[in-house]
Amino acid sequence: MRIRPYNFFAGPAALPLEVIERAQAELSDFKGIGMSLMEISHRSKEYEEIHDETQQLFKELLQLPEEYKVLFLQGGASTQFSMIPMNFLVPGKIANYVMTGAWAEKAILEARKIGDVFISASGEANNYVEIPSLEDIQVYPQTAAYLHITSNETIAGTQFHSFPRIKNVPLIADMSSDILSRPLDVSQFALIYAGAQKNLGPSGVTVVLLREEIVRNIPENLPVMLKYDTFTKHNSLYNTPPVYSIYIVNLVLKWIKQHGGLVSLEKRNAEKAKLIYDAIDQSGGFYTGMVKLNSRSLMNITFKVHDDELEKLFLQQSKANHFIGLEGHRSVGHLRASTYNAVPYEACKALTDFMIDFQKRYG
Amino acid sequence: MRIRPYNFFAGPAALPLEVIERAQAELSDFKGIGMSLMEISHRSKEYEEIHDETQQLFKELLQLPEEYKVLFLQGGASTQFSMIPMNFLVPGKIANYVMTGAWAEKAILEARKIGDVFISASGEANNYVEIPSLEDIQVYPQTAAYLHITSNETIAGTQFHSFPRIKNVPLIADMSSDILSRPLDVSQFALIYAGAQKNLGPSGVTVVLLREEIVRNIPENLPVMLKYDTFTKHNSLYNTPPVYSIYIVNLVLKWIKQHGGLVSLEKRNAEKAKLIYDAIDQSGGFYTGMVKLNSRSLMNITFKVHDDELEKLFLQQSKANHFIGLEGHRSVGHLRASTYNAVPYEACKALTDFMIDFQKRYG
Repeated sequence: MRIRPYNFFAGPAALPLEVIERAQAELSDFKGIGMSLMEISHRSKEYEEIHDETQQLFKELLQLPEEYKVLFLQGGASTQFSMIPMNFLVPGKIANYVMTGAWAEKAILEARKIGDVFISASGEANNYVEIPSLEDIQVYPQTAAYLHITSNETIAGTQFHSFPRIKNVPLIADMSSDILSRPLDVSQFALIYAGAQKNLGPSGVTVVLLREEIVRNIPENLPVMLKYDTFTKHNSLYNTPPVYSIYIVNLVLKWIKQHGGLVSLEKRNAEKAKLIYDAIDQSGGFYTGMVKLNSRSLMNITFKVHDDELEKLFLQQSKANHFIGLEGHRSVGHLRASTYNAVPYEACKALTDFMIDFQKRYG
Repeated sequence: MRIRPYNFFAGPAALPLEVIERAQAELSDFKGIGMSLMEISHRSKEYEEIHDETQQLFKELLQLPEEYKVLFLQGGASTQFSMIPMNFLVPGKIANYVMTGAWAEKAILEARKIGDVFISASGEANNYVEIPSLEDIQVYPQTAAYLHITSNETIAGTQFHSFPRIKNVPLIADMSSDILSRPLDVSQFALIYAGAQKNLGPSGVTVVLLREEIVRNIPENLPVMLKYDTFTKHNSLYNTPPVYSIYIVNLVLKWIKQHGGLVSLEKRNAEKAKLIYDAIDQSGGFYTGMVKLNSRSLMNITFKVHDDELEKLFLQQSKANHFIGLEGHRSVGHLRASTYNAVPYEACKALTDFMIDFQKRYG
């Protein structure tokens, strides 16, 4: 194998090398059956073991309370943006959203197609460089269907570091870009969803964790594939699930477990992000972080070089030095280093060294 | 690698060995980039090449007219069952369905949630062992939103061998289990859809071929991920597509092209099916086909042994002889051999030999 680049893509993103190698080794002959996992029935015992074990690993890593279910869906977080209001925004109720940037906005647009939406708090006034403080989140429990947050804004580079608790209001979170990056008290949430392609595996599967009681009153007449209770009743096997994506998620979860679980990952992720944020903060203004200190994401580090031309040069030279995916999202530009679970410490150290060296040469 | 079983699964199903081997070879280092295709952005040039080439291969193999688009969705045919009426069953119109069995029924149930449905023809009276004849399909063009057929019923083992043409009524077909198994005049259809996990690749991607003009009047307020025009406008890149599944489809399409395209596949598929149907028909009643001769599927061959106990023994012994997936669907029982594109002639020959031998021993 050729040199493995330092992969800072925002998603699909780096996977652990051990996972890739294991997947490669057993691609054509899965556990001695002489066939690929891709070419056997989703009702076969070999696949069912993967399916059940993957759910079990989520339960174990997140210490899920008994009443939570692990579901596998398709269509990405973008499909969840619609499913949530379709399932839970019943007439007479209001959906509450914290508006934190591009992804929250997409969720809100879809909810508005279904019913009434109230913006409980918004970072718009300060251009989304800060997560609204928990005290500023307004929710009226009597009419609230739920409160929705985006735990990590991949594009802006902001992250919730604690979560709102509103009595009698189900809390729903899009955790696509920070799920399993830190220990989590799931009992605070009625539903958590995440597209896999950042911290969990390849694209093609969306993981939903939900408290089972919330699926009791789902409107009967929804499309079968858009009702959460189709997935709870059929254990996510109503139709053919995205078998191979779930299998890779399975391997990623085992890798997390082998590396000490979420407590250990949180520590490592904090160390990785600190390296890069320190290089920014100690650059005397050569580099600037794009968001407020209290809202910095440990998953997506957005920053810029003080001069646009130098920034272009930075990107060029970074590519030549095996750094991949450092462009900011096309809607905001500048730079972004995504430091998900599978991005090694060594890659972050190498980036930091490169940043310091670049500054020495052009600062 | 261990002995490769004779894989007759109904889906997910056999893939060409060459495809599996190629995928394995480049899993950890895709075209020399030092990373897996699973861990790079869907906006990277490496993935975009796969995406565009896969569309191009569909166009080439099916000789798609200029005005057709190739889309990649998620959620399987089951999600299409809802999307079709949501997008095309406008108020004042009636959706027409040909009821051919289990899969047509699921499509009909979802359409009924959206609007008015008319059953244009039904095989119910003869227990779905025959596809209704084209002359018996009733459609009233003035009120018809579309006519929907299931070109191949995977569970019953029936298949349309020619298609209805109703002037001014868009024809929509679920081709999940026989797409690319034979040449097709796509211009007869307004929309064709297929879950990949039978003839195209692994589960996790749904291919939609549609005439672009039909997306012109889609209701504005539908969920963004359930509108076909989201996929036409954004070239199926509105959000992250199921990258790896599409990549395997790409390899499968190349394999089809290398093996002479659809004309050649049709011939080979007919030969494969003939082997097994002949063994049934020449058994003097030891084996019986489950459907009428004129409606037999070349993809899913459903049959039974004249005695239930012997049938159990057949299944047991077939497993011991490396035949996999010969159980009929749990809803109908008996036997089913799925002989999709990737199932080799040799596997069908071996099954036929086994059937004849079994009959000799127990007939």
